[in-house]
Amino acid sequence: MPDYQRIKTELEGIALEDNPALVRQKSRDFYWYSPILKAQLDNVTADLVVTPKNEEEVIRTLKVAFAHGVPVTPRGAGTGNYGQAMPLSGGIVLNLAAMNKIKEIHPGRVICEPGIVLAQLDKQTKAHSGQELRFHPSTAQTATVGGFIAGGSGGVGSITWGGLRDLGNILRLRVVTMEAEPRVLDLTGWDLQKVSHAYGTNGIITEIEMPLAPAYDWVDVLVGYDDFMAAVRFSDALAKCNGILVKEIAPIAAPIPHDYFTRHKPYIRKGQSVVVLMIAPHSMDAFLAFAAAHKGEIMFRSDKVESMKGIPHAYELAWNHTTLRALKVDPGFTYLQVQYPGPDHVAKVAKMVEIFGDEVPGHLEFIKFDGQIQCSGLPLVRYTTEERLEEIIKIHQDHGCPIFNPHRYTLEEGGMKRTDKVQLAFKHETDPRGLLNPGKMIAWENPDFDFNAGKNYLFPGLASVMEAS
Amino acid sequence: MPDYQRIKTELEGIALEDNPALVRQKSRDFYWYSPILKAQLDNVTADLVVTPKNEEEVIRTLKVAFAHGVPVTPRGAGTGNYGQAMPLSGGIVLNLAAMNKIKEIHPGRVICEPGIVLAQLDKQTKAHSGQELRFHPSTAQTATVGGFIAGGSGGVGSITWGGLRDLGNILRLRVVTMEAEPRVLDLTGWDLQKVSHAYGTNGIITEIEMPLAPAYDWVDVLVGYDDFMAAVRFSDALAKCNGILVKEIAPIAAPIPHDYFTRHKPYIRKGQSVVVLMIAPHSMDAFLAFAAAHKGEIMFRSDKVESMKGIPHAYELAWNHTTLRALKVDPGFTYLQVQYPGPDHVAKVAKMVEIFGDEVPGHLEFIKFDGQIQCSGLPLVRYTTEERLEEIIKIHQDHGCPIFNPHRYTLEEGGMKRTDKVQLAFKHETDPRGLLNPGKMIAWENPDFDFNAGKNYLFPGLASVMEAS
Ligand SMILES: Cc1cc2nc3c(=O)[nH]c(=O)nc-3n(C[C@H](O)[C@H](O)[C@H](O)COP(=O)(O)OP(=O)(O)OC[C@H]3O[C@@H](n4cnc5c(N)ncnc54)[C@H](O)[C@@H]3O)c2cc1C
Ligand SMILES: Cc1cc2nc3c(=O)[nH]c(=O)nc-3n(C[C@H](O)[C@H](O)[C@H](O)COP(=O)(O)OP(=O)(O)OC[C@H]3O[C@@H](n4cnc5c(N)ncnc54)[C@H](O)[C@@H]3O)c2cc1C
Repeated sequence: MPDYQRIKTELEGIALEDNPALVRQKSRDFYWYSPILKAQLDNVTADLVVTPKNEEEVIRTLKVAFAHGVPVTPRGAGTGNYGQAMPLSGGIVLNLAAMNKIKEIHPGRVICEPGIVLAQLDKQTKAHSGQELRFHPSTAQTATVGGFIAGGSGGVGSITWGGLRDLGNILRLRVVTMEAEPRVLDLTGWDLQKVSHAYGTNGIITEIEMPLAPAYDWVDVLVGYDDFMAAVRFSDALAKCNGILVKEIAPIAAPIPHDYFTRHKPYIRKGQSVVVLMIAPHSMDAFLAFAAAHKGEIMFRSDKVESMKGIPHAYELAWNHTTLRALKVDPGFTYLQVQYPGPDHVAKVAKMVEIFGDEVPGHLEFIKFDGQIQCSGLPLVRYTTEERLEEIIKIHQDHGCPIFNPHRYTLEEGGMKRTDKVQLAFKHETDPRGLLNPGKMIAWENPDFDFNAGKNYLFPGLASVMEAS
Repeated sequence: MPDYQRIKTELEGIALEDNPALVRQKSRDFYWYSPILKAQLDNVTADLVVTPKNEEEVIRTLKVAFAHGVPVTPRGAGTGNYGQAMPLSGGIVLNLAAMNKIKEIHPGRVICEPGIVLAQLDKQTKAHSGQELRFHPSTAQTATVGGFIAGGSGGVGSITWGGLRDLGNILRLRVVTMEAEPRVLDLTGWDLQKVSHAYGTNGIITEIEMPLAPAYDWVDVLVGYDDFMAAVRFSDALAKCNGILVKEIAPIAAPIPHDYFTRHKPYIRKGQSVVVLMIAPHSMDAFLAFAAAHKGEIMFRSDKVESMKGIPHAYELAWNHTTLRALKVDPGFTYLQVQYPGPDHVAKVAKMVEIFGDEVPGHLEFIKFDGQIQCSGLPLVRYTTEERLEEIIKIHQDHGCPIFNPHRYTLEEGGMKRTDKVQLAFKHETDPRGLLNPGKMIAWENPDFDFNAGKNYLFPGLASVMEAS
């Protein structure tokens, strides 16, 4: 057991918390979405929470932790769904929420600290120059930009810009290494992919440069259809309208909208599937012309309600908020993360709907993937047993629909992040003792790990591009 | 012969020009690109040029012309390539160049008069609020926004936004009808498609509302490859990078770049094919990482040259400027407009390159078409005979590459604009005597015209959507 008394003395002047109840609270995230992770991770807790207010305090903390051999698990807001921010081996939770300042705003980009809440960031860049992040998770009101980069993948706006996996969607990251004398690295280009979605296993992000897009007063719209597949076809056709600027397109199957979107319920009929949309104000005319031609029924428009008081943002009905809203009413649900590779993504969705019906109520997110419109899915699953869940996963895979398993807490098993020798070499450089968020990278724990195991990864490995260039 | 003495008296107070040499000058466009149109249209000229300074003067002019049965052909800057602005039956050329004011600028949109030059418009919206048009033709420095809407199709920025054919890329048009008492119509939604690319045959546009995108200090880049198809593959892969913001991607085959891009010649090796690019400054890092991985050689960067004095914008090497630059050096060239429908557009291009080799030097423009990255082509053609040109067209079509024939002056034969009963009914309403730009719409001249003749149209007919909605 490390000598925490001494550690605390050595960290003097930095905000610390060791009250077990509070430490436990800062040691959890939304892992409980998964009944499987809930069982596995329920007892995880750290020993100490350290809250640095600047990079210098981060460096001091890592230096002390390294000297004592104490694990450090960074944390933004703890809204991850796979236990990403949970300290499997105890130790220090490094809470970055106090590093929340914007440093510079320029046309097309912003430089900030990692702990700023995404909605705060957007608010400030919008007020400054009518700009906002290209995309954000549906947790924008609570999650941090650092946590998003290290633990997220994409979200609201990915229909236009793709995700964090795409070159150009992160401009620069400054990371502090976990060594006797921590170094500060500035990463750009391909190197960024070493740190994005790496769960903080290879450096603490202390400064971030992100691209910005124009900020508009997006109009929230719900379009209703009696048939889910009609809603999907509408969504696909809309996503392919080059001239209509949208930020979000999510078809969601009955009974979810009426039964679980409590604040929007007055606008939705029972049995209706809806498409959750965000439309640029100057695209509304064109959108309405398009919707009329596609016989879409406009159920709700945020620019036409008397007051939005008490009504959440449309995006807080989408992405993993759909799951959250269903879980709140019926804890018997869990969910999956599905890819439906295009160009026949609509047909693939139709097949899954046909096979599973109401056991797996549909929820799609239209996104841009390698320049192509396709959809990813976060369908709900009426959970019975782990075996049946595995079976449902297998049936998806057998029909050409890869699953990113949200019931796994390692990078590789979740299927989002490919580790490879470049990734591993980088970790050897930045975290030689393996103290950063231990237990999350199988390739590190198991030197015999087969990099080619487990098929399809959202964030590709780096070995190939690194060799090419 | 109409009584022009009386007409001039009735138009008193409006700027008029009847000097035959000057009238002839304002009766031509870039029709001479086509050896076929050159032969057909060389003698076309109007009788009088009228230059209104506001909508009221447009209304007065149309009223007088209608009373005298005089044809009216609107004109922006006369940079069209198919004789669009040429008065086949003489009469009045209505020169809109003096109606060149911006009325309002808002987030995401601008309201202006039709005669403003596109580059002027962009300059003013950029200075006002860092905005610019979504896309413009490569003639932005001379062409007007009204002429672009009535006679153009797309251009620089179409890789992100598609073209004028796409719902949402024009927000509102105000048009004056050609009647005894001219009316003013405000068009939005699907109705816009009645007037876009209609060569001014169904109303004079007097006010325009267009969507705006963020304006950046785009970096001009030329990337060199020894092999044209390598340049094409690079372009296709880059176009599919969601996170790298580009405004222009045009691969152009040797010998064109070295032999005809005189100002850029010092940067290009003989025999090199190049990709002409415009990259957002905040995407340059990612772009360079991408280019390195694809072994693209950076030949030129506008942000690294000592002075851009005397060096044209990159976009003035692309679109129909490629053709222009080749024609200036070697008048033996003409060109085609080709579609290579995706997703196998690259394979289609390869096939054409294989068949024609240096007889048809390749020039592609990557664009977004119905939500999909694909490419259109403006290949040069070493012109021999009309028969061989027809043969080249046929071989393209036989290989699934439709041609928009730039050697035809009617809407339908050019293949860009589908006329149908909705379009025709609209013309009956707005121009009952057929006096607006006569001779350009076959469906009007020939009541037996088969709307389904001639296959594939860039601007689709309206009958189907109008019935649906
Ligand atoms: C209702 C709901 C909806 C969601 N919707 C989306 C969505 O649309 N898209 C999406 O991608 N995700 C989504 N998520 C997951 C999650 O909310 C986001 O990824 C979020 O951005 C995480 O931010 P955070 O600040 O909460 O990070 P945390 O959960 O605190 O951390 C995430 C990971 O990043 C690491 N980390 C945090 N800060 C740093 C740092 N400075 N340096 C290095 N590593 C660091 C942590 O160790 C952890 O591994 C959703 C979750 C919920 C509960
Ligand atoms: C070198 C070169 C490059 C080009 N590149 C492109 C390109 O990238 N993309 C592209 O789409 N085109 C291109 N073109 C064609 C042309 O330049 C553009 O379409 C341009 O926008 C036309 O504008 P203009 O003001 O010159 O119109 P004009 O040629 O004057 O008119 C075009 C048509 O619009 C009608 N018209 C003009 N004003 C009005 C009005 N107010 N109301 C109703 N009708 C009106 C005219 O009668 C005519 O039929 C190119 C041409 C050249 C020579």
